[in-house]
Amino acid sequence: MSVIYNRVALIGLGLIASSMFWAMKRGGLAAEVTGYARSQATRDTARRIGLCDRVCDTAIEAVQDADLIVLCVPVGAMGPVMAEIAPHLKPGATVSDVGSVKKSVIEAVAPHIPAGVHFVPTHPMAGTEHSGPESGFATLFDNRWCLIVPDGADEDATARLEDFWHALGAKTERMDVQHHDLVCAVVSHIPHLIAYTMVGVADDLNRVSDQEVIKFSAAGFRDFTRIAASDPTMWRDVFLTNKEATLEILGRFTEELFALQRAIRTGDGDQLFDYFTRTRAIRRGIIDAGQDTAAPDFGRGGGKAAE
Amino acid sequence: MSVIYNRVALIGLGLIASSMFWAMKRGGLAAEVTGYARSQATRDTARRIGLCDRVCDTAIEAVQDADLIVLCVPVGAMGPVMAEIAPHLKPGATVSDVGSVKKSVIEAVAPHIPAGVHFVPTHPMAGTEHSGPESGFATLFDNRWCLIVPDGADEDATARLEDFWHALGAKTERMDVQHHDLVCAVVSHIPHLIAYTMVGVADDLNRVSDQEVIKFSAAGFRDFTRIAASDPTMWRDVFLTNKEATLEILGRFTEELFALQRAIRTGDGDQLFDYFTRTRAIRRGIIDAGQDTAAPDFGRGGGKAAE
Repeated sequence: MSVIYNRVALIGLGLIASSMFWAMKRGGLAAEVTGYARSQATRDTARRIGLCDRVCDTAIEAVQDADLIVLCVPVGAMGPVMAEIAPHLKPGATVSDVGSVKKSVIEAVAPHIPAGVHFVPTHPMAGTEHSGPESGFATLFDNRWCLIVPDGADEDATARLEDFWHALGAKTERMDVQHHDLVCAVVSHIPHLIAYTMVGVADDLNRVSDQEVIKFSAAGFRDFTRIAASDPTMWRDVFLTNKEATLEILGRFTEELFALQRAIRTGDGDQLFDYFTRTRAIRRGIIDAGQDTAAPDFGRGGGKAAE
Repeated sequence: MSVIYNRVALIGLGLIASSMFWAMKRGGLAAEVTGYARSQATRDTARRIGLCDRVCDTAIEAVQDADLIVLCVPVGAMGPVMAEIAPHLKPGATVSDVGSVKKSVIEAVAPHIPAGVHFVPTHPMAGTEHSGPESGFATLFDNRWCLIVPDGADEDATARLEDFWHALGAKTERMDVQHHDLVCAVVSHIPHLIAYTMVGVADDLNRVSDQEVIKFSAAGFRDFTRIAASDPTMWRDVFLTNKEATLEILGRFTEELFALQRAIRTGDGDQLFDYFTRTRAIRRGIIDAGQDTAAPDFGRGGGKAAE
């Protein structure tokens, strides 16, 4: 591999930034990587474990002469950080971010981008339930998707950032801003909210112990508890900043759920049967389209779906 | 291994029964296994693939001289089948069932059990999204739980059936009827209903294609579509017959979900943060209790949870 950006600055040193650093080292993708985190404790940890070639005490110092600046802070903190570093960016540099929401990040960040600096938002769809500077690892992005939302950005700067993500191990796909936020609400944000809710309900019940829930869960529900352990700050910001798409999908979800609940209450077996037959057809259509296989492999260790 | 029941009769020849047959053959657990299915097509298929030592054209013929009779039909069909075979059971025989719901099955089946015949309900918590006589395989129950709900049954008959399930590969745990139905509503029935609903919502949207949903889903949501392809008849009966527990958990679920939805709509970040922090603590508590590991292993292929 070879250097794609001479100097990369990581602003925020959590799971994504630390994984980016180790993946950059693995591939030799940058001559120097600087890093900045708001908290002294995080900076101390980063220095102790060798995370970043140089850990800086200010964001302004970290972005000096950087060719790529990646904002890896919670979505709600992107705007203020960008305002702070804006006057200190090298002409021709590229600013990117790794937020799970794109419309509100672009609204917060884009107005601060100086003339001659490119802004190319991205969303690496990878993570674990762990967070912080010690949670990263070089293979996090391997074969995962990184969505690129150029939103009118310079083509050369966009293509170079795509090369960078490919070198980090990811597959990329360009997407429109609004579509990105809707797709992610469906495949990620609402499923996470549901997982949080279901774990909360199970815990509230008291009559069913948490340990029973884990013991008798198939991988599906067990993963509910796993994703419900994800970083609270990050997810708070996701829901606050992707409010529109989240509320739309939630509205549809509860509407459908209530229809099924009513069918259960009234004993309308035909409605339940028809609904379940339709979703089965959707799934079969997906398999026929070659997007997944029919092999039984629900959850971990090659196990099967619970009945 | 050695024979545990001389003759076993499987009533209904779907995923569970066919897997039981192959697992019995693997372990040499029965001298002869008879089978019956209501549909001629299923019986023909069973004969063609060698499913059961003898496929019978009536349930009455199948249960002749059987030491163990396992009802493997949808929950809603258990009562009528039991009424039909009741007069033809051998004294001392054990009747069992594999329904996902226990209270309503016991209410439907127990009144027909003749004096001198034992009834020991079970619930093997294993399955795939496939159904029918050709979907079974010998390893389906290996290391999975089979819940035993004796509900006052004879201890010797219960212990023998537990031995049988251990020989089929499963771990067993005894559980009270009401508790079984509540636990399963939490860990299985409601998560399935949510999966069905979420797949239906994604499909209805139109603006997000099914293929996009699969392509950009982490294992979690992809498994939603997988379980939403499960047998519609079986799941219709589960929800109709576990109505009480299902509606209770659904009520709690939507109550919690609405509270979070309101927090999103009003921008109450503190409430979201506090909720997510609480569910994280629940998850951590489960790990500390040794019920699961902290290793990131969300979904298939050792992948990670999507952000």
